[in-house]
Amino acid sequence: MRSHWIVLVAAAGAAGVALGQAANWYPSQWGPADQRGAANRITAQKVLEAKSLMTRGTVYQLGHIYESSMPLFGTRHFSLKIPQTYGPLGSNRTMYHDEIVSAEIGQVGTQFDGLGHIGVGDLFYNGNDRADFSRPDGLTKLGVENVGPLVTRGVLVDVPAFKGVARLDGGYEITLADLRGALERQRIEIRSGDVVIVHSGWGSLWNVDNAAFGASAPGIGMEAAQWLVEREVVLVGADTWSMEVVPNPNSDLAFPVHQLLIPRSGIYIFENLLTEELARDRVYEFAFFFAPLRLKGASGSPANPLAIR
Amino acid sequence: MRSHWIVLVAAAGAAGVALGQAANWYPSQWGPADQRGAANRITAQKVLEAKSLMTRGTVYQLGHIYESSMPLFGTRHFSLKIPQTYGPLGSNRTMYHDEIVSAEIGQVGTQFDGLGHIGVGDLFYNGNDRADFSRPDGLTKLGVENVGPLVTRGVLVDVPAFKGVARLDGGYEITLADLRGALERQRIEIRSGDVVIVHSGWGSLWNVDNAAFGASAPGIGMEAAQWLVEREVVLVGADTWSMEVVPNPNSDLAFPVHQLLIPRSGIYIFENLLTEELARDRVYEFAFFFAPLRLKGASGSPANPLAIR
Amino acid sequence: MRSHWIVLVAAAGAAGVALGQAANWYPSQWGPADQRGAANRITAQKVLEAKSLMTRGTVYQLGHIYESSMPLFGTRHFSLKIPQTYGPLGSNRTMYHDEIVSAEIGQVGTQFDGLGHIGVGDLFYNGNDRADFSRPDGLTKLGVENVGPLVTRGVLVDVPAFKGVARLDGGYEITLADLRGALERQRIEIRSGDVVIVHSGWGSLWNVDNAAFGASAPGIGMEAAQWLVEREVVLVGADTWSMEVVPNPNSDLAFPVHQLLIPRSGIYIFENLLTEELARDRVYEFAFFFAPLRLKGASGSPANPLAIR
Amino acid sequence: MRSHWIVLVAAAGAAGVALGQAANWYPSQWGPADQRGAANRITAQKVLEAKSLMTRGTVYQLGHIYESSMPLFGTRHFSLKIPQTYGPLGSNRTMYHDEIVSAEIGQVGTQFDGLGHIGVGDLFYNGNDRADFSRPDGLTKLGVENVGPLVTRGVLVDVPAFKGVARLDGGYEITLADLRGALERQRIEIRSGDVVIVHSGWGSLWNVDNAAFGASAPGIGMEAAQWLVEREVVLVGADTWSMEVVPNPNSDLAFPVHQLLIPRSGIYIFENLLTEELARDRVYEFAFFFAPLRLKGASGSPANPLAIR
Repeated sequence: MRSHWIVLVAAAGAAGVALGQAANWYPSQWGPADQRGAANRITAQKVLEAKSLMTRGTVYQLGHIYESSMPLFGTRHFSLKIPQTYGPLGSNRTMYHDEIVSAEIGQVGTQFDGLGHIGVGDLFYNGNDRADFSRPDGLTKLGVENVGPLVTRGVLVDVPAFKGVARLDGGYEITLADLRGALERQRIEIRSGDVVIVHSGWGSLWNVDNAAFGASAPGIGMEAAQWLVEREVVLVGADTWSMEVVPNPNSDLAFPVHQLLIPRSGIYIFENLLTEELARDRVYEFAFFFAPLRLKGASGSPANPLAIR
Repeated sequence: MRSHWIVLVAAAGAAGVALGQAANWYPSQWGPADQRGAANRITAQKVLEAKSLMTRGTVYQLGHIYESSMPLFGTRHFSLKIPQTYGPLGSNRTMYHDEIVSAEIGQVGTQFDGLGHIGVGDLFYNGNDRADFSRPDGLTKLGVENVGPLVTRGVLVDVPAFKGVARLDGGYEITLADLRGALERQRIEIRSGDVVIVHSGWGSLWNVDNAAFGASAPGIGMEAAQWLVEREVVLVGADTWSMEVVPNPNSDLAFPVHQLLIPRSGIYIFENLLTEELARDRVYEFAFFFAPLRLKGASGSPANPLAIR
Repeated sequence: MRSHWIVLVAAAGAAGVALGQAANWYPSQWGPADQRGAANRITAQKVLEAKSLMTRGTVYQLGHIYESSMPLFGTRHFSLKIPQTYGPLGSNRTMYHDEIVSAEIGQVGTQFDGLGHIGVGDLFYNGNDRADFSRPDGLTKLGVENVGPLVTRGVLVDVPAFKGVARLDGGYEITLADLRGALERQRIEIRSGDVVIVHSGWGSLWNVDNAAFGASAPGIGMEAAQWLVEREVVLVGADTWSMEVVPNPNSDLAFPVHQLLIPRSGIYIFENLLTEELARDRVYEFAFFFAPLRLKGASGSPANPLAIR
Repeated sequence: MRSHWIVLVAAAGAAGVALGQAANWYPSQWGPADQRGAANRITAQKVLEAKSLMTRGTVYQLGHIYESSMPLFGTRHFSLKIPQTYGPLGSNRTMYHDEIVSAEIGQVGTQFDGLGHIGVGDLFYNGNDRADFSRPDGLTKLGVENVGPLVTRGVLVDVPAFKGVARLDGGYEITLADLRGALERQRIEIRSGDVVIVHSGWGSLWNVDNAAFGASAPGIGMEAAQWLVEREVVLVGADTWSMEVVPNPNSDLAFPVHQLLIPRSGIYIFENLLTEELARDRVYEFAFFFAPLRLKGASGSPANPLAIR
């Protein structure tokens, strides 16, 4: 399967442009002015399809706890402090607490990557040049406030269960065969408009061994990603910081799956999802609920998405 | 109706302790160690009740856009900046944007008030003394990470429609008669475990006249609040910054409804909700979906809750 | 005098390039790799010249108080909060307070503009292209950590005293004749390596009428600035947010004096200085002491510079 | 010498109250309303004494570079980011950079501890109870904006040179004999109103081995501190994060020297000073220049103090 992808890359030609798909990736299929990408795939029908999966009334939180000890990428930070208590106010002596948070808020912890996050060089989704929309006070296009609600069918792909391990290794590329095998084992198919979450077991290192957690990651490569693009999914998530395999088997490439999904295909990415409970309970199909915080001009959003069965 | 409440207050006795309810408000009905309050009312049955309301597959976002121009309370701030673009990385030239946010993140814009937010003097929900859990690095009890998913039946109470106005006046106390009248007009009842959102029309001032928006607010007073407590709701929300009427008709009192709901009753509050579309479409009953960001030790959470019909 | 400058601008030709000085402004006179600009003018001799002015032992603070109510430019913010008290620690019960500050710290309140702050289009001091040094984690060239100590002779130019007014009007351009007249009145000359601070009286609006303070400002224009460049000063400061006249008499130009001083001449700018006490005491010549906070890769620095007589 | 201090402690009686000095430590010698402590010792005469030491015109920066890689205490953080470049503005195409900083700004890196930083239980300098002045928006008493300029004679005490080592060991208590021996070797005496900086060599670990740097520190203990109090100094600084010895030889005590100096004696502390160049050049006596950033209500200040010879 890897050879298939290599052929595609070789055939595509110029470095930095073609990575397993046509070079002409814009305008997007949703028109040259579109800022929502694959969120357009979510219809009332998909919402009702999600509804039909809510058979037991069991709700799973897919977001990790945000705390200063959590693993952070590069020089990103997360600081939460409680100021001195305010008050007392009035004869009823109201006291209150706030919290002060400073962080790359949409890009730390459980995080949703919007269409303004990733570029192919200077070009972002729909061919938007960063010179035209990257502004200090917020992205003037592709901001996460444009996404809207993502309520749809969700699918968990438990790859370790298929491979017979508790946790995939760092740097392991989840192949198309792995995806297909895992889905077959689960007797689940992926449909247009779905949210797909890949469980790798890597999340068990979260806040346990942060150095190992961030040093590498198992994840899908270009081949599996291309197949998901063709399945017309809305979002691909995982229990790792990168969603995709890191390092990429092609050591020249940095986060190529991010480029394939976000700018080239308008498909969103979710990182650092909490997937352990879904895997434990074998909840492979569920109603998925998430809407990004409407942070104007932001590249992403913090999250606590819900999976309901 | 006001006189009814005055009697309650008078009967209750000592100022600052009794406000229309028994003085012995802790331990809570969910036990002395409970940190989730009325979230305990959400059962699988309520989730399935919510499901049954998803008849059309229409999804409403109830969260405002977060931007530096939005109205802010007191000295709270909200700053979002886009750092210089990172990259290019690899031969595929990946570029990426982050955002830097500094804010009282759970207490600005659309905001969910957790059980650690409000105290009666030094006493918070379940009688927790702030000296015991207010710590600089986060509340060690009652943090918003304890709440969990709030998926339940939601009810919108459109008071202006009942009163025949577009927007209630600042300082107008929504009485129990108003609530009952509006619900009767809508032919909707409130049930145990519901989320109740009071539409006042005040949200039309959001980012339009921030000075007026923040100077006062229409909202429920103690009488209506007490009735909602007795209805065993999970959460009371509104399209105002305070949810409750400000200034309180009793000028000695500062945010007494906050105290009645949060510390005394374990009932959550949602402020600055976007309710206009629900009111416009007369969606008075809906499936409500929200889970706080799991910000460890925080007093509240930013939000973009969903109402689905 | 204005006509003189207009002639210079007209003669210089192409817009955006020539503003009363030669187009070939780089490499700088301190070499193509220099990152310190006019700070190179400060020699041990200048330090000793400063020393000689310390005749009375009177020390003036030139920095305003930083507080959330102070005037702020554009969308900049300043937030300072005191977290809950830490401790008690040990049998000796040590308690301690920190502060949490979030701000455009080098560009709010009393602020020192470094060489990385201002560009002529994409070109900064010494012809550095921002594509080459503007990085999300800090400027990789021209950062304020390169400046070093500025200990030298300081001169206050009291223009309102010369003009016989308490405060210059917003938008008033301080001409070369004004500068010369004020200096003559003070019987002071400007020398190579000096710090020059222009008192306009505008600072009396600070935290009194912030809207008026920020709406415009009196200040030097291109003519006076060019003369200061020729005097080989190290830094030009003022008691306004812009140091230079705003709006510029040539309404096509935005902050042209900033460009003349910083990128073209390597001369630093100080804004929002507290000059009232110096003016009141007629301290026109003094020892000046300041070193930027060594914030790696920052564009500027907060400050509380000292003037000693 | 240690035994001397032990006797003092024993004689003083109750734990947590007496630590080598009288229990009645307030009101302060500068009156019950004083908020400046030992800064009151700085007179015009001390400024002129400082002046007299400026014989060569050599200026030393005593502040470290602030960067995200520097050692940080506990959960404190330091984040500096450069937003997208602003502009171009006007026909002259002005571009500009800001910086976004979030940090415990007065308590990270080179830091000046103000009188609001440290308490003996709830009591701070001049007996101020934290309940009376610790407010979320800033300390309402003892804020660092009250300190004012510290321009005075500075003394460096090079203890490693006296001991014949390059760097003192972590946990080594600098005794009074050490201080006296080092001063004798340097032929320098300490006078009332001086700033005293103790060089330990520990700064050579800064940003080289942050784990070791923060795990412990050499520094003065109670005995040497008491002697400095009696010398009537203004400030005690060091090239360590704690200034005082950590862990304290009396393992029950946490930062007792901080308590002796700041709340009990009104004497300031400087931490993480850059002392290597002074030690290398044997500059043991110098003019010291520093004024805290006037951060309203802050516990401390970032700094780049100057030593001039």
